[in-house]
Amino acid sequence: MKTDLLNWKHVFKLDPDRYLDDDDLEQICRSGTDAIIVGGSSGITYDNTADLLSRIRRFEVACTLEISDRDAIVPGFDLYFIPVVLNTEDGAWITGQHHKAIRENSSILDFDLVVPEGYVILNKQSTAALVTGAHIPETQEDLTAYALMADRLFHMPVFYIEYSGIFGDMTWVRAARATLRGARLFYGGGIRTPEQAVCALDAADTIVVGNIIYENISLALATVPGRLKHKSEENNHESSHSYL
Amino acid sequence: MKTDLLNWKHVFKLDPDRYLDDDDLEQICRSGTDAIIVGGSSGITYDNTADLLSRIRRFEVACTLEISDRDAIVPGFDLYFIPVVLNTEDGAWITGQHHKAIRENSSILDFDLVVPEGYVILNKQSTAALVTGAHIPETQEDLTAYALMADRLFHMPVFYIEYSGIFGDMTWVRAARATLRGARLFYGGGIRTPEQAVCALDAADTIVVGNIIYENISLALATVPGRLKHKSEENNHESSHSYL
Repeated sequence: MKTDLLNWKHVFKLDPDRYLDDDDLEQICRSGTDAIIVGGSSGITYDNTADLLSRIRRFEVACTLEISDRDAIVPGFDLYFIPVVLNTEDGAWITGQHHKAIRENSSILDFDLVVPEGYVILNKQSTAALVTGAHIPETQEDLTAYALMADRLFHMPVFYIEYSGIFGDMTWVRAARATLRGARLFYGGGIRTPEQAVCALDAADTIVVGNIIYENISLALATVPGRLKHKSEENNHESSHSYL
Repeated sequence: MKTDLLNWKHVFKLDPDRYLDDDDLEQICRSGTDAIIVGGSSGITYDNTADLLSRIRRFEVACTLEISDRDAIVPGFDLYFIPVVLNTEDGAWITGQHHKAIRENSSILDFDLVVPEGYVILNKQSTAALVTGAHIPETQEDLTAYALMADRLFHMPVFYIEYSGIFGDMTWVRAARATLRGARLFYGGGIRTPEQAVCALDAADTIVVGNIIYENISLALATVPGRLKHKSEENNHESSHSYL
């Protein structure tokens, strides 16, 4: 499973604290996306996480938990992403919570399924930034230094740029990706249209689509690379965009 | 060079801020130790680091810089150890200083020579603990959870237990080592006799001998594994200890 993520181009992020009806969930799971990430910044509990997992498990799609609360580590996911927030002064979000989670779960935790994410938060208005006390990178060089840290110092498999709610500066994202040798660049934030998905995927390795799922399911589904290609073929190549 | 450290059993740590005369330095460098680590908790400058490196370079021993101040990153060392303090709430000692160091030195830093150390400080009276605001592990399980974090979450090549000045609890050190799969356990703190060296090396993979160098050079030299074996052979195996 860990090696699978090297091929992920598109993932949907589902929030256990937000409502999604069965039809929409089925469409998301059958969309052709590479994986579902379950995670959110607030209101995450064991029960709502377990409930969402059981609903996703009716389909074949790969399903990953992005751990944000150590009381909500539910067994049965394919992978466990562990965010390590690189741009905060608060050690709780870098190693503190992680230490407690490992101490409490060391007997049941299968580290072969655990993937650390070097996380950088770029939207200072986001819940994630407020909760973690993130210091937002002020320059492109600030961001690429974080990319180097995740990739070359910590040898993390994932470097995650989180704009959380706003569509980011793809010049910065592209520059960060150019510094990576081993890590895969995940980009999340403000992808609400197929055009933005194309643009983000041109800069990042993997794009994460979240909020739009709860606002406009059709637009969300249209961000899946295979779907866009399909659509453009049906439209006799009217679109100049291609994911592949 | 990085792979060499997998075979290190004994290293001397030299402090650029402490005086060592040429004869003592030569004895340390020719002692048969596996490497010299240059590092300290206070008073480290570019000049005193460069000066010590140039004096060590008269000999063939491997020489590593343990970076504690980003203004004192001197080129020319064989390896660069970067402490990542796992047991602090102050992000500056986990990722903050590291980010600044990478940003300032990204053009000259050769990451192939960089080795992250998962660092846990266990002596709350030590300068390292005071400077970093370390939370001292209260139980053996606290320590082994840090070992798991360094080894299985961060995949760091070195897990460093630093008792800094006092001889630690080897039961804890041994338990921490038992949890490691890939990381090598470095132990430092209070090794002042060959007997303590034997005891520490029985629990750890690599032992770090520091302060005693400046207090009793003969005792310091006697902690080198090869020397102890030699001595015991000369004494017709009077000593029951053996490093090998």
